[in-house]
Amino acid sequence: FSVRQTESAYRYRDIVVKKQDGFTHILLSTKSSENNSLNPDVMKEVQSAMTTAAADDSKLVLLSAVGSVFCFGLDFIYFIRRLTDDRKKESAKMAESIRTFVNTFIQFKKPIIVAVNGPAVGLGASILPLCDVIWANEKAWFQTPYATFGQTPDACSSLTFPRIMGVASANEMLLSGRKLTAQEACAKGLVSQVFWPGTFTQEVMVRIRELVSCNSVVLRESKALVRNTNRTALEQANERECEALKRVWGSPQGMDSILKYLHKKIDEF
Amino acid sequence: FSVRQTESAYRYRDIVVKKQDGFTHILLSTKSSENNSLNPDVMKEVQSAMTTAAADDSKLVLLSAVGSVFCFGLDFIYFIRRLTDDRKKESAKMAESIRTFVNTFIQFKKPIIVAVNGPAVGLGASILPLCDVIWANEKAWFQTPYATFGQTPDACSSLTFPRIMGVASANEMLLSGRKLTAQEACAKGLVSQVFWPGTFTQEVMVRIRELVSCNSVVLRESKALVRNTNRTALEQANERECEALKRVWGSPQGMDSILKYLHKKIDEF
Amino acid sequence: FSVRQTESAYRYRDIVVKKQDGFTHILLSTKSSENNSLNPDVMKEVQSAMTTAAADDSKLVLLSAVGSVFCFGLDFIYFIRRLTDDRKKESAKMAESIRTFVNTFIQFKKPIIVAVNGPAVGLGASILPLCDVIWANEKAWFQTPYATFGQTPDACSSLTFPRIMGVASANEMLLSGRKLTAQEACAKGLVSQVFWPGTFTQEVMVRIRELVSCNSVVLRESKALVRNTNRTALEQANERECEALKRVWGSPQGMDSILKYLHKKIDEF
Repeated sequence: FSVRQTESAYRYRDIVVKKQDGFTHILLSTKSSENNSLNPDVMKEVQSAMTTAAADDSKLVLLSAVGSVFCFGLDFIYFIRRLTDDRKKESAKMAESIRTFVNTFIQFKKPIIVAVNGPAVGLGASILPLCDVIWANEKAWFQTPYATFGQTPDACSSLTFPRIMGVASANEMLLSGRKLTAQEACAKGLVSQVFWPGTFTQEVMVRIRELVSCNSVVLRESKALVRNTNRTALEQANERECEALKRVWGSPQGMDSILKYLHKKIDEF
Repeated sequence: FSVRQTESAYRYRDIVVKKQDGFTHILLSTKSSENNSLNPDVMKEVQSAMTTAAADDSKLVLLSAVGSVFCFGLDFIYFIRRLTDDRKKESAKMAESIRTFVNTFIQFKKPIIVAVNGPAVGLGASILPLCDVIWANEKAWFQTPYATFGQTPDACSSLTFPRIMGVASANEMLLSGRKLTAQEACAKGLVSQVFWPGTFTQEVMVRIRELVSCNSVVLRESKALVRNTNRTALEQANERECEALKRVWGSPQGMDSILKYLHKKIDEF
Repeated sequence: FSVRQTESAYRYRDIVVKKQDGFTHILLSTKSSENNSLNPDVMKEVQSAMTTAAADDSKLVLLSAVGSVFCFGLDFIYFIRRLTDDRKKESAKMAESIRTFVNTFIQFKKPIIVAVNGPAVGLGASILPLCDVIWANEKAWFQTPYATFGQTPDACSSLTFPRIMGVASANEMLLSGRKLTAQEACAKGLVSQVFWPGTFTQEVMVRIRELVSCNSVVLRESKALVRNTNRTALEQANERECEALKRVWGSPQGMDSILKYLHKKIDEF
């Protein structure tokens, strides 16, 4: 069925927002980028939908994607075009867009459930530890090859990945760019549970309905107990990482690395 | 064999305490509640036995259970009866009982080894990360469906579960109430090792004897090195969680959730 | 081939250092101890090689071992000889040697990749979480039976092991001395990935070459983001652990435990 034929289709271009009974469902479905990758426009739409869900009677947000890809991370095609114009200005702007986007997840007080249907790369994977429950199907895979495309980690993954999976596995992803299958990501703690693609949607919806039947105060207070002690550390990690990104992207090598990575991706197709 | 025919049987009603050569063995075996669930009487007996073991020549405590259940968490039948009398007073009393019980585990300076023989639910599972080594047999399973019975996490699980298994798996247990088999709990770090039920007791006892052959100062100093930096964080988490429990249980919705959960359990039988 | 016939063979006795294009390869190959175990001479050679690699154009350090053992931990034969002379003085000296050795890893700003070819015991295993990526082959195994040989944890394992694998598994290693296979160590987060021994060297080298192709500033800034917030905690853990070691080794029971452990090892052969 065409997801775009639902309500809210007139409001957003890069996402679809379905306000359901008790929760808000945000689906990545970008038109301004390929493979649900994130440029400032896409990020602003997600922030807007989340701000609405924070204030209305939604008890939680379900984040998923339309198609066979979850999210291919930063929209490098958008970025490289602008970087070649004015490197210092555009790298600062992009780092700031990311900082604000990531901070929206850090500050969100209601549970965020993510259903990962396919590849989650870069920022599309590093954002996951800032969410609360991550369900994936067998077709999903996860990779954060930051050093390969010449950047430092983002979305607080320099703090969250080691906490979740230990330094050895975190660095294997962040430095060595190892790709994890859904099962491997689950074994390492990045994903809560993995489901068969054929029944993935039903399995997620059963659990969403159970969560929505819980008291909203209990859901919010439970999240606060789990998250509040770490919020400052996450805010500081987000700052540090975005400062590092400004430095790395503002340098000539930074741009060269992105170009090298894009050429390699083109050759692979 | 009848465990109750051993020494200390005259002292306790809800637990059995066996002072062995070098260690104290505390077995949950409640008479005042079903399924080794915890009411203030049971909790006080465990605290009393642990206080004795802290002061005598025991090098460690072994905590296990009699029967086919490890511990079904809070004794809701005890609790609901009193909540209907005076909600605010009884919710504050129960939260305070839990706070003291949990604090006994936080402050305990000798190693606590747990042998999990069956289901560990709610407080019976959340207490485990405050212990030092957790051995389970294949019949054990673990569930903390707090949101389902309308409460927020306890026993510092809002802090310990994310640290052990990462936020995605911790929230899947604390919010979504996922049940883990013994093997799953081991894979996620809640349990150290899983054994075949037929040889479980022998496997545990071999290891207990090896531990007891170690120098008591070395055991205590090793635990101090592992635990001391976190003690304040655990004490604060315990406080925050118990304040949240007072709020949640002191509200009308809190009592309704417990009643709804009890009715569902009765229907399941 | 004889590794010792390479460059730098004249400089070191207990390690082999191969300066490659873009990285430094340090191989444990002790002559002054058995099984690559660590005495102050071996530790000083490793520190010296790492200090050189920190200052030259190496982008990273690869640490591995010659033979079928990775590292059997502290050289107890060296230690017991000196302890029987002057217990207080020699225990303080050894604790200080360990403190300096461990601190070298804590302070190292470039990535340290470890290739574990065989058993990693005691200090040979506890040092691993201070490194960045740990690749092991199937023949590797891991054990930190500290309580068994009468000591408290070292190399910050009292802090790092619980963070990586949770308290239940960390204590099972540090107190109960459980031995982990390479696969078990990977499942518990101590090791990033396990490879087939026959292709281990190639698999590691492919990944080393990819890492070396990354920008050195990106590698160093990424490690800084992951490590800097924890550095003070690691330094303090190192201090606390070494003070505990002085106490434990300076006591009569400390020496007796080491002798008892050595006799047991001799009996096993």
